[in-house]
Amino acid sequence: MYLKTKKIDIETGNELTILLNNTQAEQEGIKEGQKVMLAYGDIELYVEVQQTETKVKAGEVGIYEEIWERYRIPNGSTVVIDIFNRPDSIDYIKKKLLGQRLSKDEIYAITADIAKEKIRDIETAYFMSCFFNPGFDEEEVIDIAKGMAESGDVLDFKELRPDGGMAVDKHSIGGIAGKGVTPILVPIIASLGLTIPNTSTRAITTPAGTSDILEVAMPIAFTNDEVLKVVKKTGGCMIWGGALKLAPADDVMISVERGLHIQSYNKLVASIVAKKIAMSITHVLIDIPYGKGAKVDDAENAELLAKKFIRIFEEVGIKCQVHRRFVKGPDGNGIGPVLEMRDILWALERDDRRPKFLEKSALEMTGKLLEMSGKAADGKGYDMAESVLESGRALEKFWEIAEAQGAKKVLKADDLVPGEYSQDFKADRDGVVKFIDNKEIMRVSRALGTPFIKDAGMVLHKNVGDRVAKGDVLVSLFASGRDRLDGGIEELDLGVLFGF
Amino acid sequence: MYLKTKKIDIETGNELTILLNNTQAEQEGIKEGQKVMLAYGDIELYVEVQQTETKVKAGEVGIYEEIWERYRIPNGSTVVIDIFNRPDSIDYIKKKLLGQRLSKDEIYAITADIAKEKIRDIETAYFMSCFFNPGFDEEEVIDIAKGMAESGDVLDFKELRPDGGMAVDKHSIGGIAGKGVTPILVPIIASLGLTIPNTSTRAITTPAGTSDILEVAMPIAFTNDEVLKVVKKTGGCMIWGGALKLAPADDVMISVERGLHIQSYNKLVASIVAKKIAMSITHVLIDIPYGKGAKVDDAENAELLAKKFIRIFEEVGIKCQVHRRFVKGPDGNGIGPVLEMRDILWALERDDRRPKFLEKSALEMTGKLLEMSGKAADGKGYDMAESVLESGRALEKFWEIAEAQGAKKVLKADDLVPGEYSQDFKADRDGVVKFIDNKEIMRVSRALGTPFIKDAGMVLHKNVGDRVAKGDVLVSLFASGRDRLDGGIEELDLGVLFGF
Repeated sequence: MYLKTKKIDIETGNELTILLNNTQAEQEGIKEGQKVMLAYGDIELYVEVQQTETKVKAGEVGIYEEIWERYRIPNGSTVVIDIFNRPDSIDYIKKKLLGQRLSKDEIYAITADIAKEKIRDIETAYFMSCFFNPGFDEEEVIDIAKGMAESGDVLDFKELRPDGGMAVDKHSIGGIAGKGVTPILVPIIASLGLTIPNTSTRAITTPAGTSDILEVAMPIAFTNDEVLKVVKKTGGCMIWGGALKLAPADDVMISVERGLHIQSYNKLVASIVAKKIAMSITHVLIDIPYGKGAKVDDAENAELLAKKFIRIFEEVGIKCQVHRRFVKGPDGNGIGPVLEMRDILWALERDDRRPKFLEKSALEMTGKLLEMSGKAADGKGYDMAESVLESGRALEKFWEIAEAQGAKKVLKADDLVPGEYSQDFKADRDGVVKFIDNKEIMRVSRALGTPFIKDAGMVLHKNVGDRVAKGDVLVSLFASGRDRLDGGIEELDLGVLFGF
Repeated sequence: MYLKTKKIDIETGNELTILLNNTQAEQEGIKEGQKVMLAYGDIELYVEVQQTETKVKAGEVGIYEEIWERYRIPNGSTVVIDIFNRPDSIDYIKKKLLGQRLSKDEIYAITADIAKEKIRDIETAYFMSCFFNPGFDEEEVIDIAKGMAESGDVLDFKELRPDGGMAVDKHSIGGIAGKGVTPILVPIIASLGLTIPNTSTRAITTPAGTSDILEVAMPIAFTNDEVLKVVKKTGGCMIWGGALKLAPADDVMISVERGLHIQSYNKLVASIVAKKIAMSITHVLIDIPYGKGAKVDDAENAELLAKKFIRIFEEVGIKCQVHRRFVKGPDGNGIGPVLEMRDILWALERDDRRPKFLEKSALEMTGKLLEMSGKAADGKGYDMAESVLESGRALEKFWEIAEAQGAKKVLKADDLVPGEYSQDFKADRDGVVKFIDNKEIMRVSRALGTPFIKDAGMVLHKNVGDRVAKGDVLVSLFASGRDRLDGGIEELDLGVLFGF
C-alpha cells in the first residue's frame, strides 16, 4: 500500500520502527511487532510495526527518528509498505539449531538478511547462540566472515597507495580496559608513509571502546567517501567502523550480543576478518592480550585463537601476524573515555605523567607492524617507532588526522577533566600490586556511567608491580552525578579490584 | 527519579515500553533501548526506553498502551523510574551457553526475570536456544517447569470440587491444523460433573490455535477471579491461558520462539507441565498426534515424548496418560478460526455436515479422560461420551460455559461464514487421498491471513481416505481481501497439499 510519511520524534534504540493506524493495519492483516517492508526510491527497509489510533491516520505512516535521520526521508513522502514472506534464512537458522552444517549460500542468505534487518533481533540472537552450540566449522566461519563483508560496502584504497596497494592495520581482540594503543600507533605508522585506515568499535566488554575514547577528541562517524578523503589527505584515519556501511551484519550481531558480555572465538574472528576485508586491508597485526579477567584467560587459548586468526586471514588473502601478551591489569591508568584520552595525549605530548607500560605496548605493536610491512628491518621496528614518537611527529600526525576528521580544536591532555563527583580509596595495608581485575574495572565503570557518560570512570594510582604503603590512594572514582558515583562505590570491592 | 505519566497512544506489540525526554534521559545516563524499572504502587515493571525531544517533557514519562491498559495506570500519576543492575540471570544464561548445567536457584532466577521482563527478548532467545544446544537434563526441565509455574499465580479449584479436589484436563501438543477436539470434549466432561478448567493457546505452529477458534464464539480473556467464577458456575471453562497470569515466563518464551516455528521436546513438555501446575490440574490426558508434517514425525519420537511427559508429570505429582495417534491429515475439514468453529458447532448440533473423524477423535480422548478419572469403567468411556454428545447435553453445556464467559448470543454453525473472496481448486486426475500436508496447510493459511483474520482459511472437501474423481473440488480458499486471496493462491501447491 502507498502511504504518506509523517516524522515521529521518537528514537527506539532498536530495530527500525514505523507507526501505522490501527484500523488500516488490521485491514491489511498487519499486527504490531510484525516486520514489513518499506520502500522509498532505491531504499528498501525492513521495519517493525507499532500501532496507534490517533497519532497517524489511515493513509499515513509514522516514521521514527532512526529512519528519517539515517535515510533522509522527508515528511509527506510517498512510500510503499508491503507484507513480505517469511525469509528462508530463518529456516537456515533453524537447520543450524538442529545441529546441521550450513552451505555458503545459506550463510550468505543469513548475513544478508541480518544486515537488511529482514529478520528480527530475536532470530539473530538464535543465530548468535549457534556460535556456542552446536558451533561452526572453519569453512563455515570463513563463509560467515565473507558473508558479513559482502553484506555491505567494500572500501578500496588502491589508488591512494603508492606502495603497491598496501594498507596496514592493527586490531586488538579487546576485553582489556585501557585502550591507548591504537591512537598512538596509527599516527606513528601514518607519519612513516604507510596507509593505515583504522576502524574501531564502541565498547562491548570494556568500560570504553577505542571509538568511545577517540570521540572525546574528534568526530568519528563518516561516510565511505569522507573516509577516502581523510585517508588520501593524511595517510590514515581513526574512525568508528559502525558508522560506515562495512559488514553491517556484524553491527547488528554486535548489538544483539552486547547484553550478554561474551563472544565465542569463532564469532570474534569472523567479525574482525569481515571488517578487514571490507577495509581492503592487506597486512594486519592482531593483538591478543591474555590473562585472568581478559577475554582469553591463558596461553593455551591465546595460541588456539592466534592459529585461528592466521589460518582464516590466510584463506581470505590477508597477511596476518599475532601479538600475544600476558596481561595482569589494564593497559593504562585512566579508565573511561575522557581519562583514557588523557593518558594517550600525555604519551603523545611526552608528558611525564604518561603511563609508561601503555607506551611500551604501543611501541612494540607499532614496531611489529613496521617490520611485517617491510618498512623496518627485522628487529628495528621498535626503535623506529620510538624515534617518531620522541620527535613529536606522532603528536603532529594525530592532530592532522583529527582535523581532517573535523576536530574543531587541538586539545591538550590537561584540558581533559573527569566528572566532578569523585571519591578516593586507600590501601588498608602495605604490599605490592600483583594483579588488577579487568572484570571488576568493567563492573564499577559501567555503574559510574561509562562509556555513555564520557567523563565518568576511574584512575588507578597504582598499577601492576607497584609497591603500596598503607594509606596510599589506590584508585579514584569519577562520575557526573551523586547517584552515579554512589552506584560505582556500591559496586566497588577493593579486595577484588587489586590483588596484593 | 519521580516522573508524571502521560499516556501515549502507541502499541508496540513487543516488550513494555516508555518514552523519556532526551535531555533528561541523557542526564540520568539512560540510553534508548535500555531497560529501566518503573514502579507505581505495588506494581514493579521492567520497561524499555524510547526517547523524544518533544513528545514528553522533562519531568514526564510517556507510557505506551500495553502499560496503561494492562496495569491501569492513569494519566498524570507519579511513578518512579530507576536504573537497575544487570540481572544475575544473564550470567546464568551465559553459563548454560558455555555448556554447564544450571541449579534450581539459577533456573528459578531466569524464569522469574523472564516473567518480569527484567531481561530483554534477545536474552530470552539465547536461553531458548539452549533447549536445542547444549540442551537440559531431566532435572533441569523439571525445575524449568516449576520455575515457570512459580513465575506467576497458581489457581486453586479445591473448594469448588466436591470430588476430593480433582481437576481434569486434556492438552494436545498441537502442530496439527483442525483444532476441534477441546470444544467438544470440555462440555461433555463438564456435563458429567467433573471439574475441567481448560486453558488453551493461540496459534504457534498452526493456522489457528484453540484460543483463536473459541474467540469466534465467546470471550476468552479473563482474570483469575473471573475464571474461578465461571468454573464454579459451570464446572468448566474454555479460555485463553495467555490472559491469566499463569506461568507468565512461558508466555514471554512463546512470543520469542514464535518466529522460528520450532520447539524442542523439552521446551514443549516444560511449557505444558507449568501450565497444568498453575491450574492445579490433578489428571491430564496428553494428545500426541504424529506423522509426516506433524510436530512429531514418527512413532519412535512419539514414544520418546510420551515417556518424557509421563515421567515429568509424575515428578510434579500430576497423573498423566498419553493418547498417541498416527495422523495423515488435519483433524477437521475447516481450517481457520471461523471455519473450524463451524465444524465444532456442526458436531455439537449433530448436523450431518460434521467431520466424522474429528468427532471420533474427540470421543476417544473424552472416553480416556473419563476412564482415568474413574468416572467411567475401563473400556466404557467412549460410549459414555458419545451418549452425552448424542443427547444434546454437550451442546447445552457448551453454550452454558460460553455464556458464563460472556458470550452475547448462541450462534448456529450456519451463522458462521468465511471470507467473501474465495477460489476453488479441482483435482486433475482420479485417485484416493493418502495424505494431506499440514505444513502446506500452514503456509497457505498464514498467507490468507489466519489466525489474525478470523474468517480467512480453507475448506478441505476431500480428506484422507476419500476417493476423488478428476474435476472434483479438492479445496476452497477464503480471504477477506483480493490481495490476501492472491497471496494464498501463490503459496498453494496442490500437489504438495494432497498426496494421492
